[in-house]
Amino acid sequence: MRAMSTPSSRSGSPEHRTVAERGRVGFAPADGAGSGGATATAAPSVEGAEQLDDQIAAGLLPTRDKRGHKGSFGKLLVIAGSLDYAGAALLVCRAAGRAGAGLVTLAIPESLQPLFAAKVVEATTMALPEDDVEEIDPEPAMARILDHDHDAIVVGPGLRPGLSTAELVRLLLAAGEDGGAAPVVLDAEALRSLAAEEGWWEGDRRPSVLTPHTGEFARLRAGSGREPEADGDISGDDVARATAARDAATTWGQVVVLKGAKTVVAAPDGRLAVAPFENPALASGGTGDVLSGTIGSLLAQRLAPYDAARLGVYLHGLAGDAVRERLGDAGLLASDLPEPIALARKRLAAIAERRASGSRLGFVARLPGGTSGAGEPTAPGDAAPTPPAERSESPS
Amino acid sequence: MRAMSTPSSRSGSPEHRTVAERGRVGFAPADGAGSGGATATAAPSVEGAEQLDDQIAAGLLPTRDKRGHKGSFGKLLVIAGSLDYAGAALLVCRAAGRAGAGLVTLAIPESLQPLFAAKVVEATTMALPEDDVEEIDPEPAMARILDHDHDAIVVGPGLRPGLSTAELVRLLLAAGEDGGAAPVVLDAEALRSLAAEEGWWEGDRRPSVLTPHTGEFARLRAGSGREPEADGDISGDDVARATAARDAATTWGQVVVLKGAKTVVAAPDGRLAVAPFENPALASGGTGDVLSGTIGSLLAQRLAPYDAARLGVYLHGLAGDAVRERLGDAGLLASDLPEPIALARKRLAAIAERRASGSRLGFVARLPGGTSGAGEPTAPGDAAPTPPAERSESPS
Amino acid sequence: MRAMSTPSSRSGSPEHRTVAERGRVGFAPADGAGSGGATATAAPSVEGAEQLDDQIAAGLLPTRDKRGHKGSFGKLLVIAGSLDYAGAALLVCRAAGRAGAGLVTLAIPESLQPLFAAKVVEATTMALPEDDVEEIDPEPAMARILDHDHDAIVVGPGLRPGLSTAELVRLLLAAGEDGGAAPVVLDAEALRSLAAEEGWWEGDRRPSVLTPHTGEFARLRAGSGREPEADGDISGDDVARATAARDAATTWGQVVVLKGAKTVVAAPDGRLAVAPFENPALASGGTGDVLSGTIGSLLAQRLAPYDAARLGVYLHGLAGDAVRERLGDAGLLASDLPEPIALARKRLAAIAERRASGSRLGFVARLPGGTSGAGEPTAPGDAAPTPPAERSESPS
Amino acid sequence: MRAMSTPSSRSGSPEHRTVAERGRVGFAPADGAGSGGATATAAPSVEGAEQLDDQIAAGLLPTRDKRGHKGSFGKLLVIAGSLDYAGAALLVCRAAGRAGAGLVTLAIPESLQPLFAAKVVEATTMALPEDDVEEIDPEPAMARILDHDHDAIVVGPGLRPGLSTAELVRLLLAAGEDGGAAPVVLDAEALRSLAAEEGWWEGDRRPSVLTPHTGEFARLRAGSGREPEADGDISGDDVARATAARDAATTWGQVVVLKGAKTVVAAPDGRLAVAPFENPALASGGTGDVLSGTIGSLLAQRLAPYDAARLGVYLHGLAGDAVRERLGDAGLLASDLPEPIALARKRLAAIAERRASGSRLGFVARLPGGTSGAGEPTAPGDAAPTPPAERSESPS
Repeated sequence: MRAMSTPSSRSGSPEHRTVAERGRVGFAPADGAGSGGATATAAPSVEGAEQLDDQIAAGLLPTRDKRGHKGSFGKLLVIAGSLDYAGAALLVCRAAGRAGAGLVTLAIPESLQPLFAAKVVEATTMALPEDDVEEIDPEPAMARILDHDHDAIVVGPGLRPGLSTAELVRLLLAAGEDGGAAPVVLDAEALRSLAAEEGWWEGDRRPSVLTPHTGEFARLRAGSGREPEADGDISGDDVARATAARDAATTWGQVVVLKGAKTVVAAPDGRLAVAPFENPALASGGTGDVLSGTIGSLLAQRLAPYDAARLGVYLHGLAGDAVRERLGDAGLLASDLPEPIALARKRLAAIAERRASGSRLGFVARLPGGTSGAGEPTAPGDAAPTPPAERSESPS
Repeated sequence: MRAMSTPSSRSGSPEHRTVAERGRVGFAPADGAGSGGATATAAPSVEGAEQLDDQIAAGLLPTRDKRGHKGSFGKLLVIAGSLDYAGAALLVCRAAGRAGAGLVTLAIPESLQPLFAAKVVEATTMALPEDDVEEIDPEPAMARILDHDHDAIVVGPGLRPGLSTAELVRLLLAAGEDGGAAPVVLDAEALRSLAAEEGWWEGDRRPSVLTPHTGEFARLRAGSGREPEADGDISGDDVARATAARDAATTWGQVVVLKGAKTVVAAPDGRLAVAPFENPALASGGTGDVLSGTIGSLLAQRLAPYDAARLGVYLHGLAGDAVRERLGDAGLLASDLPEPIALARKRLAAIAERRASGSRLGFVARLPGGTSGAGEPTAPGDAAPTPPAERSESPS
Repeated sequence: MRAMSTPSSRSGSPEHRTVAERGRVGFAPADGAGSGGATATAAPSVEGAEQLDDQIAAGLLPTRDKRGHKGSFGKLLVIAGSLDYAGAALLVCRAAGRAGAGLVTLAIPESLQPLFAAKVVEATTMALPEDDVEEIDPEPAMARILDHDHDAIVVGPGLRPGLSTAELVRLLLAAGEDGGAAPVVLDAEALRSLAAEEGWWEGDRRPSVLTPHTGEFARLRAGSGREPEADGDISGDDVARATAARDAATTWGQVVVLKGAKTVVAAPDGRLAVAPFENPALASGGTGDVLSGTIGSLLAQRLAPYDAARLGVYLHGLAGDAVRERLGDAGLLASDLPEPIALARKRLAAIAERRASGSRLGFVARLPGGTSGAGEPTAPGDAAPTPPAERSESPS
Repeated sequence: MRAMSTPSSRSGSPEHRTVAERGRVGFAPADGAGSGGATATAAPSVEGAEQLDDQIAAGLLPTRDKRGHKGSFGKLLVIAGSLDYAGAALLVCRAAGRAGAGLVTLAIPESLQPLFAAKVVEATTMALPEDDVEEIDPEPAMARILDHDHDAIVVGPGLRPGLSTAELVRLLLAAGEDGGAAPVVLDAEALRSLAAEEGWWEGDRRPSVLTPHTGEFARLRAGSGREPEADGDISGDDVARATAARDAATTWGQVVVLKGAKTVVAAPDGRLAVAPFENPALASGGTGDVLSGTIGSLLAQRLAPYDAARLGVYLHGLAGDAVRERLGDAGLLASDLPEPIALARKRLAAIAERRASGSRLGFVARLPGGTSGAGEPTAPGDAAPTPPAERSESPS
């Protein structure tokens, strides 16, 4: 694996520039500073949208206690995979490990356990009770899940479509009612289940991150009584994407990651962040599973949902750029991504450390909204790394 | 994996030259330009044969929308594999992914699904109904295939010989009668099935690419009432190879890829292309499966059959040369090839981009039939990359 | 894999230093030489504790007969793995091979054998009789184990919790009563079994190495009638860790490896060694399995338990540092470790060879307790490599 | 994988020298030239023993037709593997592919086929009839084997011990009586079967290569009525090893490879060759399977048994040296070897090509017995590469 020194995402120009060099593209900065809006693509701006960059992402990294043990770095439960979509589960688990989770457990229907055991060597497996072959029995399955010790959950990638999956997702989401349940990433089949359930977002729900691609997003919106057409072109129009994602996050009261070129992350309180990556190499089967594993891993490491989503999207994008550097615009396989995710995290950690050293040594800190150098983007929250306590809103 | 800067195929001379340097060898160029015919091997020429090279192949590359999603880059259905020939299916799937398909689904007999699930992590699997263990039930299998959403199909590698396979191939090919079915690559056991079926090429058929090696080709010819001897030495005589392939393509109304040293690609309209590669390292089990996966992947990416066949053959050849650079003339395993296929595509994309930049900047474009420089071959179709709409003849 | 020239473990200082440069940190040297105690962390010292470093570890390496065969380099039996914890068994086996064992056999319940066969290509498998699915029948299982030819055993990683596992561990440990049984590494589920068994350490027992993490250690101590609180903070306080480990080793009459940051190795005779590594990257699932496989491999290579434990801990730490150099503080997967373990051993072998060459050529040998250069630590036992006969106390 | 420019096997001296530099060590050259006998180790000489080196091995390489297809490069049938020893089969197959065979088929008991299918992606599998679970039914199994199209066979690695294996080996060996059967490598369990069968070598037998380690050799000798003690120290005494191997080859009328440090290859006509490699890293489980796969691959490529054995042993030794360069004296896993075997073959092919170019250009060819330069060893047969027809004594 090559070093990750020059991640790049060509945005309308043939030469490669690093993400940091590109700065905020296509969105006016929240504080009005900079001239990011006047780029080559001249995209219209969305008020208050934060353009993710190395500095912001580095500020989100969970601190890593030198003397921590595998429990301190987060236990993730992954509910994913079926006979038809077996690889999805493995990709989630592997990505979760590479993104730094201490322990990963894959829960699968009992009859499939031998298929998955030892496929991701570092993950353990857990059988979920079935009422038919490969068909989860939702209530006892839920009981076993609640019995298991974990800090976060990913549910959905590669799950078998059907009523029992839908019921399990419903039970899982509701299990947050007492306010103490672990946060959850809802992806793929879990999202399709929600789209068919009226008012799924009402009442107390686990803190969640939803990670739809545009098709899943449109279905979810339709399920919420919103005509998909009213959202405009959520594939190609960056403003439409951001506006729709923000509206959805507000409606559902959950963090929404609208995937695609320039992935949007929206929080229930209206905060909005946009990733700079446009990478056709990432448009292949399984890359979404890697993303949900990454976000789940960061949730398990005690990041708040909005932070886990932003950092997860950014690490995933950097990793995709690294693979694209090596293989080009086509031919990336999703299993190429997990290792570069660890390398991307290492790169951000080095940035965070340099910044922290600067602060300690009395250098002028880069302040939010200030202009601290050669056109480097700044943004609300782009200061010295916030200590975990300050940014944690996760109940786990 | 080493960089692919010096792919080489020693053609009758001990020193390594790049494919581009070698230019057109052994065949008179279509336009009469150049002196390619007077090479060291002094092979006799075949009228109208195009010698594939970097420039031509680069011109065939499908464009890659920066904002595409996994659906836009093609969905390939692979019908391949059995207990005896299990690896073939995996090689097809992996190659298809590395050649740029967005989604790959492997269809196998129901009882074998657990064997294949999660073996190629990025591919999904689909069970085909059986009427006996490992024996496909052709009609319901066909129904399930038609139900599946895909842009192209590969059928044949590693399939279990027998009547049910033959029947499935027959049904599949006929499914093109309404003119709207996805194109298909016919390989290995599918070809053996056709060889036993009289007049298989008559009537409306799906647009197809047949990829026989010389043994399979001879059997197919015999099945078409042609004495194999009448074709001459289709292993060693380049003119006999080209002539026979063109005749077959015309007779069958399909694109024919006659594999071997200097693989020939023939279109039903008489067009003929020859690849420059003679690589004994490629003469090992499974390399053909990689080729059919590559061509199928390009079909799924909306290339016309003749273009997908030419580009697939060329990428496969470049990848083989890259492995040979590293491992020598022997000892290549077919699973070495998929990753270099992505690298080969990246290399061609860089060539295409340089050419496109030149055009944009007002440089003199290399015109078809023109002589634009240091003996570089040109050919009909070797202009700036044709936009997909112009070269698509695929009904899907 | 990058060269291992600069392994490093940042101990309270931002710049990386090699292990050798760091020398003895936080513990007073046994011979009173050096000023290791006055480091940045200013940890209090524990009397007689040896700080492991390259020189000491190199001195422990088993000699490797140039003409040895696979039998001469040790046969290890691994009793590990279950359906829920399948990967653990594979990690033990792979680490054992990379640490130099000649032959590795994995014993698993009969019904699971097909799951594990060929997963670690170089290891053979052995079925243990069951009285229920995946439930070992302890007595016939023990008979089959005694029938098998091996030099050491690892038992515990990933074993299914339950009475039959506990009974097997009990039988196994007692099988040393005649004084001729192979030494054993007790890890994970084996330790949990012991914690529930009163007086397990009484009577003649196989020479053993116990490898608890702090949670397992506390449970074992409680099972020995020691209030865990009385041991103090065995996660964060280095003196408490060392004191508790020494006390436990003395009580149980076995070598104890108390894992965590700065792993402690304690011998029944009061000897104590501390590893310098604090590496958060190692705090992830499966790294403990790699450690027990490494120690078991060294036991099989005829190292005495205390030596195998010290060298195993050190090799594992160096390997962890090498992976951290590449991937950073997070995202290490346990399967990253085995190959760097072989590289770490190679590095130590080069140190041992240089020292041996120096001796042979008449250079002044570095003597125990002497000061031979730029602050390099010395210690009892840190002389020329002891021939195996001298340090072997293993009965096998 | 690093380049293989400096393979080395330290023979009694600490600095590394290439095999070519070392020349003939410890054995008087056949033609009396050179002073190889007077080396540091001062080993006594065995009359007529050829010390294998790069030049000799390069001269044995099968030529590789630039336009060959997978059939022309040899079809190998591998009869190997069981549930207990599953990895052995995979190692044989993988090594055979890396050593250049065009097609590899693994034959295993029917009930185990799902376990092995797709484990070596490039190999196909073939079910052998059973009369009990995992128990081959010898006669129908033999019928199926004779039905299969192959150029050579490897039988033995990882086979289940027992009467049915012994009977299959007996039938297989006898199948050469009509003089037209493919040659066979007999290894591991096949050798143990022969050791129990009186006079197995009598009558017409398939041309075979036996590859015993010293333990298997002693058992075979005992089965031939030779007291093992009478052979002397066949592990440590090079003269005893060579003498015993030559005597055995003469008695049995087959090529014998006596494995260990300085592996000996003996032909039935008294020819004797010794490999220079002493590599403790190779003393680990599975390396013998890689050797039998390599020799079988070369037999399938039409080398005569004595040539296949010599070249196979040499390639295996070079590959072992390459891995040792990287990982040191310990920690090699057998699966590290196959790829370096291809690299070793590439290196030898370059030597052969340089020599052939020299001849073509009119340079003085290095003649057998002549002295052509800086102490480079020569030997009978060490001329320009013999064309295959001249050296083929294989009946297939």
